[in-house]
Amino acid sequence: MDHSELTAFFLALGLLLLVARMLGELARRFNMPSVLGELLAGVLLGPSVLGALAPGIHAGLFPATPGFLTGIEAVTTLGIALFLMVAGIEVDLSAILRQGKASFVISLFGMVIPFAFGFGSAMLLPELFVGSSAVDQLLIAVFLGTALSITALPVIAKILIDLNMYRSDLGMIIIAVAVINDIVGWLLFAVILGTMNEAGQTISVWWTIAMTVGFTVLILTVGRFIIDAILPPLQAYTTWPGGVLSFAVSGGLLAAALTEWIGIHAILGTFMFGVAFGDSKHLRERTRQILDHFISFIFAPLFFASIGLQVDIVQYWDTTLVLVVLLIATVGKVLGSLVASKMVGFSDRESLAIGFGMNARGGMIIILGLLALQAGLIDERLFVAIIVMALVTSLAAGPAMQWIMGQRKVPGLVDFLNSKAFLPSMRAHARDEAIDELVAALAPATGLSREEVTERVMDRERTMSTGIGRRVAIPHARIDGLTAPLIAIGFSKDGIDFDAPDGKTARLIFLVLTPRDEYQRQLQILAEIGKLLRSDQAVERMLQAETFVALRALINSEEKTQGAME
Amino acid sequence: MDHSELTAFFLALGLLLLVARMLGELARRFNMPSVLGELLAGVLLGPSVLGALAPGIHAGLFPATPGFLTGIEAVTTLGIALFLMVAGIEVDLSAILRQGKASFVISLFGMVIPFAFGFGSAMLLPELFVGSSAVDQLLIAVFLGTALSITALPVIAKILIDLNMYRSDLGMIIIAVAVINDIVGWLLFAVILGTMNEAGQTISVWWTIAMTVGFTVLILTVGRFIIDAILPPLQAYTTWPGGVLSFAVSGGLLAAALTEWIGIHAILGTFMFGVAFGDSKHLRERTRQILDHFISFIFAPLFFASIGLQVDIVQYWDTTLVLVVLLIATVGKVLGSLVASKMVGFSDRESLAIGFGMNARGGMIIILGLLALQAGLIDERLFVAIIVMALVTSLAAGPAMQWIMGQRKVPGLVDFLNSKAFLPSMRAHARDEAIDELVAALAPATGLSREEVTERVMDRERTMSTGIGRRVAIPHARIDGLTAPLIAIGFSKDGIDFDAPDGKTARLIFLVLTPRDEYQRQLQILAEIGKLLRSDQAVERMLQAETFVALRALINSEEKTQGAME
Repeated sequence: MDHSELTAFFLALGLLLLVARMLGELARRFNMPSVLGELLAGVLLGPSVLGALAPGIHAGLFPATPGFLTGIEAVTTLGIALFLMVAGIEVDLSAILRQGKASFVISLFGMVIPFAFGFGSAMLLPELFVGSSAVDQLLIAVFLGTALSITALPVIAKILIDLNMYRSDLGMIIIAVAVINDIVGWLLFAVILGTMNEAGQTISVWWTIAMTVGFTVLILTVGRFIIDAILPPLQAYTTWPGGVLSFAVSGGLLAAALTEWIGIHAILGTFMFGVAFGDSKHLRERTRQILDHFISFIFAPLFFASIGLQVDIVQYWDTTLVLVVLLIATVGKVLGSLVASKMVGFSDRESLAIGFGMNARGGMIIILGLLALQAGLIDERLFVAIIVMALVTSLAAGPAMQWIMGQRKVPGLVDFLNSKAFLPSMRAHARDEAIDELVAALAPATGLSREEVTERVMDRERTMSTGIGRRVAIPHARIDGLTAPLIAIGFSKDGIDFDAPDGKTARLIFLVLTPRDEYQRQLQILAEIGKLLRSDQAVERMLQAETFVALRALINSEEKTQGAME
Repeated sequence: MDHSELTAFFLALGLLLLVARMLGELARRFNMPSVLGELLAGVLLGPSVLGALAPGIHAGLFPATPGFLTGIEAVTTLGIALFLMVAGIEVDLSAILRQGKASFVISLFGMVIPFAFGFGSAMLLPELFVGSSAVDQLLIAVFLGTALSITALPVIAKILIDLNMYRSDLGMIIIAVAVINDIVGWLLFAVILGTMNEAGQTISVWWTIAMTVGFTVLILTVGRFIIDAILPPLQAYTTWPGGVLSFAVSGGLLAAALTEWIGIHAILGTFMFGVAFGDSKHLRERTRQILDHFISFIFAPLFFASIGLQVDIVQYWDTTLVLVVLLIATVGKVLGSLVASKMVGFSDRESLAIGFGMNARGGMIIILGLLALQAGLIDERLFVAIIVMALVTSLAAGPAMQWIMGQRKVPGLVDFLNSKAFLPSMRAHARDEAIDELVAALAPATGLSREEVTERVMDRERTMSTGIGRRVAIPHARIDGLTAPLIAIGFSKDGIDFDAPDGKTARLIFLVLTPRDEYQRQLQILAEIGKLLRSDQAVERMLQAETFVALRALINSEEKTQGAME
């Protein structure tokens, strides 16, 4: 790369990352998967929008020189390979085995039926699906079947966590099924890619299948054993956590080279290495986190944004194709999963929820589509239709499951805070004054009378004082007519006596008001606050927050990282 | 990149990382900087060794196709840019200001004198230094002066931490001086690069200087202010820690694009952005750590290893040049720093220590040398001589300072453990039996009589019991004739009464023996163990270690990560 290519290289990467992450955060704010925003960033900066509106600027930002293009390709290729490793690490092999028969049955039907839909459609409607592609219709049909049968593990896992269903029986079944789908889907796809060389000719299918299965079996048995044996001495005798990090990344890269050499794609190598690595009981949460954070927030957004750079979605938009793909994908997947779920004994409602959950396609299918596009297997129109299908099914899965199961996203403490209810220096010197002062800050939001609320809180206080020690008090009450929890936070310089077991006065006071009937909710919030302030240092840190924003940042990050350190 | 280039791409990156980190760890084991091992990995895998011994394998591993070369270049270029950002984050701006005049005086002399040595040598001995280079002798002289005047901040910081001198007055002075040297050196170098375009012609020096100074001033004032204002809302309202991570990396990349566009190198942009970013008081330790760990252990080794791929050090080895560069570098730097240190009031011994500390060149000068080589400013012979000089001065700095100041590397707890002195299931049921059992495990290593040592420990025990609660006891004694501390660790299934304040029996027993005269040492070790076992969970985790390796891993990682979470 020469001087001007290097400038463009850094500018393009910086800009893609910035816009991708901003739109990703925006998507999350509207309870949508962040991958949506990241893809959109590429569409905006790429030929579809910026290229159409301001071709000059677009050409300057993304010069079509070989050095620049190869440079960006190298970084995004590395990025997606590492992202698949992180996705592999998240797979819980033992959970799959525990769920046993049920998940295999649901997997089977959940794949076979959409596969049949996809395969059949491509065979029946060649002019719609094959289009200008030079590849054999049969291969495209197999590809479409495979693409429709995959479920997005990261997306569905995220939805289940949001719905507080991840650890439920239903949740574990869905995860197990998604993992099996993922692995089988990738193997199928690897075979498709392996049967084409660059010229589009087919080489021995059996060799590719044998090598793929051989690699998978070896890494999940011998590889897993070796990794499990190496991790303890690595953690004991090398720099922590650098030794394990380098081992993981170099192992993933070498596995990528191996699968690429076999003729299936590099990302199957990193994914399988990730599964084997993540399964070791010696792997520390911290190692997992460093890999996850850096890769998911830097490399993955760069990759997803770069997709939009490669195709002009306006030019290649085909409404019929988009709708047909969306329809067969959804009907096939929901139907297949629903039937199988009923068979293994789930209720109608649960089966429907599983069906819509499995329907989320998310990131994996986009990667797969891009590889197929680059290999010349599918054309741009089908690629655009697959991307749209992946996004719509992912977006629909959460709301659909929520509606079917009647469960809502679990809000965190930060969702109940507001800047008016933060009193960094309280005037009160006694318990009743303090409570009144905090209630006054919340009362306007409740529409209730200040006196009434104060009295309810004091009632509670009289039955048993809420000073929990460590200079913290958590007065609270359930209030008639309240529709959502509210929290006020006050700091007292001199301390207020809340009759704590350790005899100390409270400097940090959380007032928690919850709706009358939500006893469980109240307990949860109180437990959360207790966990947040589990040590003297945590209390001290909180008391040093000078603004509401600083306080919210502290609570936001403490909530997320708790239990992160082993 | 086509299929075979992609295979080579992943294989090369995986192999470089693996070998670089293995040799890096090996170097650390011998108390040498890990960059030495990382560079050596490139030399071994590159043209110097593998290329000479097995040209076929070398050509297969590193094919000379444009796609592969650009791909590797993209990843290592990104790597070094991000590494410089991390180095910038470590800079403590306020420490520089606090040390004020003294550090400026030492910086000045510590740069001017070696600059004069380097500049003078190149002007007086053109046939040695200029060689076959087509560039103006004056530019080479300025470059050599600059190269000799830079101090390696990361290396010297690491040495000071190892010697337990980082927070001392002397340590802070050295750090402050190194930071100033770094910044001034980079500015000088940027100007040199800016005055050459690719053809070797000079463009307006003043424009480059003005832009460079303008950029530096802007990012350290306006930029710093903006970063400081953005961080709190970013931490409060975006995914934690993803929001801050993406902001940091995209900001660094955009700064890189800007400086590259100005005509100075991209890495000055990321470095300066890092300084501004790291200075924000809102930056959390955890963000810093994720960036540091991933970049220092993945990207930096890849970059340093890739250097060895680019030059055949055997072919370009010039003994005279190597020795001359080493000599003028060391004499100039030590002399300049020593004189200045004496001037501002340090003792002879301290001044000499500062001199040798400042002499460490480490990673920065290697990067600088590589850029100069790529820009055609210097030839391969001088590049090899500069690399050797950087390594030798870095290697010498630690031992020299240690010898001068009489301080030793501070060992951690793990250095006092040995596998024979770990008793996962003790037989003892009473305090004296337990102590005797642990002493028996250590006695062979001390050469002392078991009875004598047991009695010393029991004597101590009788004055005040060492059960510290939380099911832990730390019996200990200072022993005549012992030369180094020794620790034995035992687990008791049923618990042994050590008369703890919380009334619980001890299940985890650390026996600590230290040399007779090292009272301070003993206190330190006891405090370390107390910190290690600061919570019930920490004790529980330790008790679950089944093997010595697992136990050592736990202590190793706990020691390193303590205080890491805010």
